Formats: sequence, structure tokens, C-alpha cells
Amino acid sequence: MQSPLIKKLVDAFTCLPGVGPKSAQRMAYYLLERNRDGGEHLSVSLASAMEGVHHCDRCRDFTESELCGICQSERRDKSLLCIVESPADVLAIEATGGFQGTYFVLMGHLSPLDGIGPEDIGLDQLKTLIQQEKPAEVILATNSTVEGEATAHFIAEMLKGTGTELSRIASGVPLGGELEYIDGGTLMHSFSGRKPYLS
Amino acid sequence: MQSPLIKKLVDAFTCLPGVGPKSAQRMAYYLLERNRDGGEHLSVSLASAMEGVHHCDRCRDFTESELCGICQSERRDKSLLCIVESPADVLAIEATGGFQGTYFVLMGHLSPLDGIGPEDIGLDQLKTLIQQEKPAEVILATNSTVEGEATAHFIAEMLKGTGTELSRIASGVPLGGELEYIDGGTLMHSFSGRKPYLS
Ligand SMILES: [Zn+2]
Ligand SMILES: [Zn+2]
Repeated sequence: MQSPLIKKLVDAFTCLPGVGPKSAQRMAYYLLERNRDGGEHLSVSLASAMEGVHHCDRCRDFTESELCGICQSERRDKSLLCIVESPADVLAIEATGGFQGTYFVLMGHLSPLDGIGPEDIGLDQLKTLIQQEKPAEVILATNSTVEGEATAHFIAEMLKGTGTELSRIASGVPLGGELEYIDGGTLMHSFSGRKPYLS
Repeated sequence: MQSPLIKKLVDAFTCLPGVGPKSAQRMAYYLLERNRDGGEHLSVSLASAMEGVHHCDRCRDFTESELCGICQSERRDKSLLCIVESPADVLAIEATGGFQGTYFVLMGHLSPLDGIGPEDIGLDQLKTLIQQEKPAEVILATNSTVEGEATAHFIAEMLKGTGTELSRIASGVPLGGELEYIDGGTLMHSFSGRKPYLS
């Protein structure tokens, strides 16, 4: 007996990550009951973004221009190239304010079981970029997961002989982390990655 | 450095209930990276629903026609009128399959502090409906909350002298509920509402 338009809207909401039928229904009813302007605004924003947002020609991050803001900026150090898995990683690193280089965004990681190979994460484009720009250092900042490590390893193999210095971000106990609450894998990593203590 | 279109989309998502900046960003990136069709579909569904869904002329539930499916149906018993707070309550009751009467949907409850008075929850329309249809019984099925009880009480006062029989849905221990896990208020309610046990 539910209106077909509402049924369609509830269904459409379930395409969002973490949204099941119950929350989808709550979202639809909330907008219909209390915030139709918000619903219309969301509709327009979705249409514009789905239509207008593409990948940066240089780094594959999202942008609505040919080049993203970072790649366009003359204040960024192109001799330092940081490779990350996703646009959210770029945001997280930018939020620290501590990195002045540029990025290359894989938009995923290697995952042979899902049929995601080197071309799907832009590695041919990455190789061309490195041959053209010859950055002094490439920082492998993929996630500290099995897939992230495998992807970093694959890229390192691919870049052998290009004369670029490679580095991998450190993994270990997070700042403020208490040893008793850290998982064993991380703990072992922080032991094997230990450095001389300079006091 | 985030694209303005993405920024707008993330903002727009935060109008949804239970969606903060973090989940909004995850939703926007998810659609952009993996499900642009889903994003466009959601955009279209939102626009159609915000534009096309209105209130039923008789019961105030959501519908895209003048009368909702239940009010239109000839198989529903109009001598039994169930008053609920929201369209989601109608769905929940309909899902049980055990009620053959019709509904009146308040679209909220009385809340003087928020400036929500009798007209805002359609009580003038409810009175007219009851005077016209003269249902044999009106079931007050507002929530078992302070506001729901106050609203039920207000409606009961309003309908005094209309000759309609009034009832209130039972509250108590849920079926399958274990006493030790039930809150004290519910437990007291189930004691004061106790009935002769017929074996
Ligand atoms: Zn770029
Ligand atoms: Zn109706």
C-alpha cells in the first residue's frame, strides 16, 4: 500500500554504503515529512556531481577541471610524489598540513580475485608520469593492509631502474596508542621497525 | 582543495538523519568511485518523490493520488479508525496483516515547546472526519511516550460527546520479552494493566 514513488526512493537510498532498508525508509520519510528543500537540494547536488566530477588528468584524483587544484598549484613540490589508494586519503593527508608534494591516486588497490589489475589502478599512467616528471622521491602511501602492501610491492618492482628513490610510510603503534590495546600484528611491526633512540 | 561539486554533495548528504560529515563524505566518494548510476538514480528518485508525494485528503498519510490506497480500498472497514503518529507506524501495522480498519496519520505529536499544536497535527481535520464518518471505534495508537500519551489524552478529550467509542493500544512486556531486561516503567505498566488469567 506504500506509494510507488516512496518505494522507489527507499530502494534508491539503499545504494548508499551502510544504508539498509530500515535506514533508507527513515531517510525517505524524514525528507518527505520535514525537509523537502533538503531533499531537492540533495537531488540537484547528486546530479551535478555525478555529471561534473571527473578524474584529474595528471593524478587521477577527483576534480571538475582537467587538472585538480593540487596539480595546478605552483606551490606544490613535484619532486615528491605520494601514491595513495583513494581521494579520501588525499584529504586525510592534506588535513595534516604537513605534506607539500603532489599525489597519484590509484582509486583502489590490486585485487586479482576481483579482476582488478595494474591498468585498473592506473599504473601505466603512473609509469608515464614518473618518466616525464622524474620525481626525486616516490612515497608509497597505500594502506597498511594485505592488499595495500601487495600494491606497494608491485609498484616498487615496476619502478625499478627508473632511478627514483622509493619510500614506504612507517607503520607501528599510533601516537597516543597504548600497547595493551594494539593488535599483535601492529605490535610486531613496530618492533621489527624499531630505530635507534636518540636522547 | 576539494572540488566544489563534491563539497556541495557532502554538505547535502548531511541533511539526512544520522549522517554526519564523515559518513556524508564516504557516501559521496562511494557513489563517485563506484556507483554513478546509483547516484543518478537516487537524484531522480528524490526529485520525483519530493515533487509528487503529498498527503492523503482523508487520512493525511503519504500518497501520490488524492486518496491513499487504504482510503480508496472498499475492503477496509471504515467503522474502525486507528490514529497513529507517522506513516512508518501505518507500515508497521500493515505489515502485521492483522488490522482491517483505516487510519488517521497525525504526522507528529503535540509538542507545545516546539510550537506544535492541535492544528499542526490535523486535529481539526480529524474531528470533521469523525463527525462525517461516525466510526464505531477510534483506536488511539500513538506511541507509548510522554508526548504520545499526552496526544492520545488530548484527542480523547476532544472527541468527548461525539458518541464514538475510544480505545488505547495496550502497553506492557513485549512478546518474548524477559522481565529482567524490561525497563521499570514498562514493567509497572504491565502490572497495573494486568488482566484475569483464563486457563
Ligand atoms: Zn591532480
Ligand atoms: Zn488515506
